[in-house]
Amino acid sequence: MHVGVDIGGTKVLAVEVTGSGDDLAVAASAQVPMPGRDAPDAEVEEAVARAALDVAAGRPLAAVGVSAAGLVDRERERVRFAAHLPWRDAPVRARLAALLGTTVVLDNDANCAAHAELVAGALRGTSAALLVTVGTGIGGAVVVDGRVHRGANGLAGEFGHVQVVPDGLQCECGLKGCWEQYCSGRALERLTRVTLGSHLDGREVATLAREGDRTAREAFATIGTWLGVGIAGLVSAYDPEVVVVGGGVSAVGDLLLEPARSALVGALQGTAYREVPAVVPTRFGPEAGAVGAALMAAEARR
Amino acid sequence: MHVGVDIGGTKVLAVEVTGSGDDLAVAASAQVPMPGRDAPDAEVEEAVARAALDVAAGRPLAAVGVSAAGLVDRERERVRFAAHLPWRDAPVRARLAALLGTTVVLDNDANCAAHAELVAGALRGTSAALLVTVGTGIGGAVVVDGRVHRGANGLAGEFGHVQVVPDGLQCECGLKGCWEQYCSGRALERLTRVTLGSHLDGREVATLAREGDRTAREAFATIGTWLGVGIAGLVSAYDPEVVVVGGGVSAVGDLLLEPARSALVGALQGTAYREVPAVVPTRFGPEAGAVGAALMAAEARR
Repeated sequence: MHVGVDIGGTKVLAVEVTGSGDDLAVAASAQVPMPGRDAPDAEVEEAVARAALDVAAGRPLAAVGVSAAGLVDRERERVRFAAHLPWRDAPVRARLAALLGTTVVLDNDANCAAHAELVAGALRGTSAALLVTVGTGIGGAVVVDGRVHRGANGLAGEFGHVQVVPDGLQCECGLKGCWEQYCSGRALERLTRVTLGSHLDGREVATLAREGDRTAREAFATIGTWLGVGIAGLVSAYDPEVVVVGGGVSAVGDLLLEPARSALVGALQGTAYREVPAVVPTRFGPEAGAVGAALMAAEARR
Repeated sequence: MHVGVDIGGTKVLAVEVTGSGDDLAVAASAQVPMPGRDAPDAEVEEAVARAALDVAAGRPLAAVGVSAAGLVDRERERVRFAAHLPWRDAPVRARLAALLGTTVVLDNDANCAAHAELVAGALRGTSAALLVTVGTGIGGAVVVDGRVHRGANGLAGEFGHVQVVPDGLQCECGLKGCWEQYCSGRALERLTRVTLGSHLDGREVATLAREGDRTAREAFATIGTWLGVGIAGLVSAYDPEVVVVGGGVSAVGDLLLEPARSALVGALQGTAYREVPAVVPTRFGPEAGAVGAALMAAEARR
């Protein structure tokens, strides 16, 4: 069997997928907490292995796809840097292959998500498109000619660390004013901390927003507006047919996407004279990275 | 003969090119003032025709390439919108073909410049690259797989209107905080107005900077820093091998490019763990758009 494992800032999610096209589905999943960005590398690697083995539940693993929220090199061997993970130029693919005793393929989480959406989701049949994932931080992927465009060094799509506010909020990556400081689970927590308390994570803020809590809704409107402003810049630069939004925070749906669509129109040059791309959710939502990694694992074994 | 005409915010430049590869050169050129963004469309079209006929100097025109600083549609028939030109969804190619009585090809100025650099300049042999033109405003082009990537609607590369400062300076395009408000000939004029007087244009500020004038040098350092910050965002998104900088303001060379290179390193995530692309001048400088348009005209006739 093939398993896909997605490593985000707060959790490690493993999935098994079955079927194809419209029938592609997650057959089983397992989740373990991410040990944290200050944990030893090995602890994160063990968490990945544990999640994969949980899903396998005793069945032999033919291949494991690993989706990581960080800079993955062009050879897809190493995680070079990750704002929310401990790895620094670490040979993650080989380490996990040794740990799991099976074939491992590694890619950036947003590239994995874009692959899943291209194969069986919201990007099927598109040529020029963008995917933005909103989770602990922001990830992204660029689709050109119907394929994930990797860039000169495999690092294309790192949208989260584009500066949107000069000398703005301090980012975990060391820079200031990065887009993900204004539009992410972390931003939600920051925006609601004073009124709702510091115990809430992004998921709980989402639950409150769906229930109508005003502070929670305003927080989503704020990060949604920042999502649209950032997307406007990417649309000016790329001119995509469609922008697909995934990641854990996007599970809230239109509470995030509606303000993003409004802000996109408001921040795009010459909208009276040009197309404004649709902003739509991913099909696979917060599982897109893991699903894409599982598909890559299956392809690696063919 | 084939002529390329570039229409910028302040001037219309026509060139004839000869040779190919390293020997490609501008054999003749002519320049007329741009009538301005509030002039009637026909006046700008007549200026284009006049510049082309000046260069032709009585020789028959086989084809004319036209490079326009604005949004050109995917069919390359219409200028849809331009912050510094009067055209609004105007059938510019057909109008100029009628006026000149010859074949006319139309493209966005930065796409033309990128074409010139790909054929015979700083982008020869590159696969993933970006071109940024700094003139009255900012233009841009995206190179993927060694070709100009046009996007879903032909509008890729409109970097100038990416927001870099929330609620920032008012832009001619109607938005606020656009990148070109902080890095352009207009920005140079604004930064030097109080100390050096309102009569100076970008070219004169450049002359003063070369002569060592402190205000002029600081103005170039300021817009160069903004150039680097903006390029950092594009590098995060695209991961190019190289970033080529052209446009009239870039003629000043390292007075602009050195602060841009420093700011790029300072504003890019994880530089200890990733490649930082070189920031280099175009080969064809302020003439790149016109040269590329001339090459497109020659190709259209083959």
